[in-house]
Amino acid sequence: MNDKILLAHGSGGQLAHDLIRNSFLPALDNPVLSPLDDSATFEADGKLAFTTDSYVVQPIFFPGGNIGKLSVCGTVNDLAMAGAVPRYLSLAFIIEEGLLTNDLERVINSIKETAEAAGVNIVTGDTKVVDRGCADKLFINTAGIGIVPPGVNISGHHAQPGDVIILSGTIGDHGIAVLSQREGLNFMTKLESDCAPLNGLVAEMLGISAGIRCLRDPTRGGLASTLNELAEQSGVSISIEEAKIPVREEVAGACEMLGLDPLYVANEGKLVAIVDRKDAEAILEQMQKNEYGQNAAIIGEVREKHRGRVTMKTSFGTSRIVDMLVGEPLPRIC
Amino acid sequence: MNDKILLAHGSGGQLAHDLIRNSFLPALDNPVLSPLDDSATFEADGKLAFTTDSYVVQPIFFPGGNIGKLSVCGTVNDLAMAGAVPRYLSLAFIIEEGLLTNDLERVINSIKETAEAAGVNIVTGDTKVVDRGCADKLFINTAGIGIVPPGVNISGHHAQPGDVIILSGTIGDHGIAVLSQREGLNFMTKLESDCAPLNGLVAEMLGISAGIRCLRDPTRGGLASTLNELAEQSGVSISIEEAKIPVREEVAGACEMLGLDPLYVANEGKLVAIVDRKDAEAILEQMQKNEYGQNAAIIGEVREKHRGRVTMKTSFGTSRIVDMLVGEPLPRIC
Repeated sequence: MNDKILLAHGSGGQLAHDLIRNSFLPALDNPVLSPLDDSATFEADGKLAFTTDSYVVQPIFFPGGNIGKLSVCGTVNDLAMAGAVPRYLSLAFIIEEGLLTNDLERVINSIKETAEAAGVNIVTGDTKVVDRGCADKLFINTAGIGIVPPGVNISGHHAQPGDVIILSGTIGDHGIAVLSQREGLNFMTKLESDCAPLNGLVAEMLGISAGIRCLRDPTRGGLASTLNELAEQSGVSISIEEAKIPVREEVAGACEMLGLDPLYVANEGKLVAIVDRKDAEAILEQMQKNEYGQNAAIIGEVREKHRGRVTMKTSFGTSRIVDMLVGEPLPRIC
Repeated sequence: MNDKILLAHGSGGQLAHDLIRNSFLPALDNPVLSPLDDSATFEADGKLAFTTDSYVVQPIFFPGGNIGKLSVCGTVNDLAMAGAVPRYLSLAFIIEEGLLTNDLERVINSIKETAEAAGVNIVTGDTKVVDRGCADKLFINTAGIGIVPPGVNISGHHAQPGDVIILSGTIGDHGIAVLSQREGLNFMTKLESDCAPLNGLVAEMLGISAGIRCLRDPTRGGLASTLNELAEQSGVSISIEEAKIPVREEVAGACEMLGLDPLYVANEGKLVAIVDRKDAEAILEQMQKNEYGQNAAIIGEVREKHRGRVTMKTSFGTSRIVDMLVGEPLPRIC
């Protein structure tokens, strides 16, 4: 096997077939993938969820994960945020000529491990190779299909005044971990990305309450942008309390040094839930039992006035408007 | 609106939302897309087909199409090759900072037109922007979901000795059209890419015969690689006749000048069908009535001996082995 990826690995010819048979299939094989036809086929019955994301994180390896783990978690989580049970993933690589074959193998192994942990199968895929200098090592796209259980109806449009906002844990871990690696600041902290599949946590939450209205993972744009989206979609306002939002000391410190606000820093293993007030404590307790919800906290509530607005009671006791992210302080974080 | 795409258009923040609301939604809106949740949801019942492809064609505009039209046709066709009725597409952009907003708008309009022509809806999407020099203008990934009608069971594994091979039209048009544009050879020819959605043609074929065993679109790697794949998957050999394969004069001329073999040049609006001999003439006649099958021809047959081998009777009357593509003479053609 070549130690670097060549243009011919994306040709549709012999080397492309060798790559599939020698690298992808041994790691990812399953009965839906193995026919290797132009499309995968499977039976379905009921309400499906369908989503896609491309991953262009730089660097492709970072503390706590890599672009492969990210590309499975991100799409699994988008499905879980619809209340769906993730089932089938597509996997498409855009590779820059010259990528080390070893690096690709490491990424594929992470994809395998993460897909197993999340209970999803990779069922179809694609590989393109572009000439050197026309991409940055490796971009990945995954699309995913999940099954929405009967009776589950989650949407960003469903928040109601009086509902309670739960955050599943600390914010900013992923963005700061990637940035530290990229900028050579990793001496500062042993912080790792929070990159994780959240479908198990969501299934447990749905198992104990029918009062979950909205779920969203605050990735690019951070918690602030996610709350603004939800407020706008539901036509409500959202009020949060700074003191209740969990932030790791290392993240707070790095943000202060770099002039960033953790509210706008990306997460890859966190979710925001907007829930019926009467079930909030029970849902919170359930979340705290899951490894990905240990630090879950109630951080605010939904209100009626000033539709689309997000406000925060600061630690000083004042109140300020929390806007959607403007500009791009942290490009290529996912 | 900015006349160029900025990093902040991929931020998940305000500019990203503006791009979705001002550019994507007006062109692509439909009831499944419009909630703009993390996943699209819809009801399904029966056998589904699921596929993905990334598109990295260079240049992004070429005679007869552009990367947008290609990204819809390619995925629609992969679904059609499973006998499926294409229904839902995801659409993910990786944009190089500095792409002209006008170019993006042109691509989106092509996506809109092609999706309408193919009868599919874009239901979910993603936009990433990478810094200048880290991608080449625009890459697109689409994934697609189609519905396989009851009783339809098409696969590359189903060819049987005695079956007949039908090709839907001329080969090499797409590859040579893109190459001519890229290399500034377009003075040579007015050739256009054959880029087209083939789901209508496939539906008509399935409507008149239950004897269609395999369908495949000979894209990267060309007709030769596709036939090799089918021979290997089905454990049969395939014999074709050079004189029966339709090739445009311009394509033959360009291939001769450039030292290329049209058998290995990509197509984006052609299909190979392996069919029961007793239905072959009827299927051929039906295909020739469709605008994308006018030049359809029977080009060979399936045999039992020498499993996995493809041979061609040349115009000189000799016979030669046709291998899978080795190397990559035409990178980034799709």
